[in-house]
Amino acid sequence: MYDLIIIGGGPAGIAAAIYSARKKLNMLIITDSFGGQSIVSDDIQNWIGEQHISGVDLAQKLEDHIRAYEDDIDIEVGKRVRSVEIINDKDNQSRSFEVETEKGKIYKSKAIILAVGGRRRKLKVPGEKKFEGKGVTYCSICDAPLFRDKAVVVIGGGNAGVEAVVDLLPYAEKIYLLEVDNKLRADQTTQEKIKREDKVEIILNANTKKITGEIMVDGLIYEDENEKEQKLAVQGVFVEIGSVPSSEIVRDLVEVDKYGQVKTDSKHTTTSQPGIFAAGDVTDDPYKQNNIAVGDGVKAALAAFKYLQEIKKD
Amino acid sequence: MYDLIIIGGGPAGIAAAIYSARKKLNMLIITDSFGGQSIVSDDIQNWIGEQHISGVDLAQKLEDHIRAYEDDIDIEVGKRVRSVEIINDKDNQSRSFEVETEKGKIYKSKAIILAVGGRRRKLKVPGEKKFEGKGVTYCSICDAPLFRDKAVVVIGGGNAGVEAVVDLLPYAEKIYLLEVDNKLRADQTTQEKIKREDKVEIILNANTKKITGEIMVDGLIYEDENEKEQKLAVQGVFVEIGSVPSSEIVRDLVEVDKYGQVKTDSKHTTTSQPGIFAAGDVTDDPYKQNNIAVGDGVKAALAAFKYLQEIKKD
Repeated sequence: MYDLIIIGGGPAGIAAAIYSARKKLNMLIITDSFGGQSIVSDDIQNWIGEQHISGVDLAQKLEDHIRAYEDDIDIEVGKRVRSVEIINDKDNQSRSFEVETEKGKIYKSKAIILAVGGRRRKLKVPGEKKFEGKGVTYCSICDAPLFRDKAVVVIGGGNAGVEAVVDLLPYAEKIYLLEVDNKLRADQTTQEKIKREDKVEIILNANTKKITGEIMVDGLIYEDENEKEQKLAVQGVFVEIGSVPSSEIVRDLVEVDKYGQVKTDSKHTTTSQPGIFAAGDVTDDPYKQNNIAVGDGVKAALAAFKYLQEIKKD
Repeated sequence: MYDLIIIGGGPAGIAAAIYSARKKLNMLIITDSFGGQSIVSDDIQNWIGEQHISGVDLAQKLEDHIRAYEDDIDIEVGKRVRSVEIINDKDNQSRSFEVETEKGKIYKSKAIILAVGGRRRKLKVPGEKKFEGKGVTYCSICDAPLFRDKAVVVIGGGNAGVEAVVDLLPYAEKIYLLEVDNKLRADQTTQEKIKREDKVEIILNANTKKITGEIMVDGLIYEDENEKEQKLAVQGVFVEIGSVPSSEIVRDLVEVDKYGQVKTDSKHTTTSQPGIFAAGDVTDDPYKQNNIAVGDGVKAALAAFKYLQEIKKD
C-alpha cells in the first residue's frame, strides 16, 4: 500500500513527484513516458527561466530531476493506467484506491494525484483518419522535413498552429494557415514570425470539411466565410487545434466538465473525491501551460501530503 | 496609459511579465529588485528542472529571461510602490489605475498584476529590534560565516529553519533549533540533513520570550513545555518563522484575509476588484513556493490579457 500514486509523467506529475519524494512519502509514479506534450516543440521560449529550450531538452531536465530521487520512490515508465477504483473499508471510515494498468497489474494507495494531461484534438472530418501518417500529422517538428518543396496546410491559428508554420518555413514551398475564427489567437510575438513570409497565406473564417487523396493526401476542402466550398491542393495537413483531457480513466469517479476536464479547486487541487487530487492539462484550469502544470503539481503534492497526515490522525 | 502594470519582480512578477511581453501588451514592471525572497538561498533543490541552483543564480536566470524582452516593455527597477488607486471615468463605464511610487512618480494603466510577494515574519519579542544586525538576523546564508565557533539559535522548525541550521553547520560551534510546536514541519529529506549532527540540539514546544544582551546578543529566553523559563547562552539568533504578505499598498482596495493575504480566485487570479489580478506569495494561496508563484504569474498574464481584450470590445 503506497501513500500516494501519481499518474502521469508530464510537468505536473514530475513536479508532484519531486515534492512528494522530498516529503519522504512512500510513492509510485506511473506514466507511459516522461516530458508531456511539449516534448515535440523545437524551441520553447516561455519555460520561465530559459530563453530557449527544446521540448526534448526540457523533458530530459525534468526526468533527471525526478531520477535524482529514484532510490526513495518507485517509478514505472512505459505503463498505461486502465482504471482507478475507490475501495471503501467495511465501516466506510476510510478509503483507499486501486490503480490497474492496461496489462492488469494492480497498485494500491491512500491518495492519488491525477496528472494525465491531454492529447491532441482531432478535426473529425472525412479523410483525417484514413490519411493519418499519409500526409495528415499532429507533430510539425517531427514531420516538417518530410514536406520539402511541397504545399501544406496548417489548421489552427493559436500558438501551436503558428509555431507549426514556423517549423515548416525552411521546408515547404507553400504554407496555408487556416483558422475557423475571424482572427488568429496566437501571441503577437509569435504571429510576427510569419507575417512577412511570402510563402505563407493566412485564411480566416475557414471551416475544414474534408481531406482528399488516393493513397496520400492531395488536397483539403474547406467552407469559406460565404459558406462556399474551396479546395487547396496540398500534400500535407498539420492539425493544431488544441488538446483534449485524458480523463477517461476517471470520468465515472470524479466530476468533470462538459469538455471532460476534471473539476478542481485550484487553490488545493482537490477534486470531487476526497483523496484524489488533479493538476495540469487534465483539469478545468483555463490555461494549459507547462509552468502552470508545474505550479499546480507542486500544490497537489503539498495538498496530498496534508491529506495523508490528516487521515493518519483520525 | 499602459495596458498593464506588474508590481513586483519575484518569480510571479517575472513570469507574468514574460507572458505579457510575448502577448505584445504595452506593459510596465515596477520592482525594487529582481528575484524574490529565495535569492538568499544557498542551494535550492526544488526549482523544478534543476537538481541544484542557488537563489542568486535563479534570480539571474529569471532576470535574463525578462530582459530578453526589454526592447518591448518598460522595466523600472529600484522603485517601490506607495499606493494603487482606481480611477473611474465620469460615467462609471470604465476604470483605470494609478500607481504611485514612493518618490511620487505616477504611472497609469488599464490593468494591474499584484506580485509584491511577502517578507520575513518577525518574532515581536523584546530585544529583537534592538539587536537586529547585532546578533539577530533573518538571512542564514548571508550571515552564517559571521558566527564561526559561536553558539547560535535558529527559531522555526520549517524548511527555512532547518536549512538555516544546515547553513550554520560549517561555522557555528553549537546550534539550537527552537520550534514552538511539538514537532518539526520541515520535509523529512531536509530534517535528515541535521539529525545526525552532534552540535545540533532540537528543542520543541519552545516559546521565545526575549533576546538579551548589552551591545550584542548574549542570550535568548524561552518558555519550555512546562511554561518554565529557560535561557540559552548564544551570540546569534536566526529568525526563520515564515513570511507576511506585502499587501499594504492595496489593503484598502482589494479584499484580504485575516493574515493580510489578497483573496483570489486561483483559477483566474482575479481579486475582488475587476482589472486587478494577483499571483504569488501576496495571495491567499496556501502554499508559498517559487514554482507555484511562476505558474500563477503565467495565469495572471493570460487572465489580464483576456480582460484587456474584453474591455476593448465594450
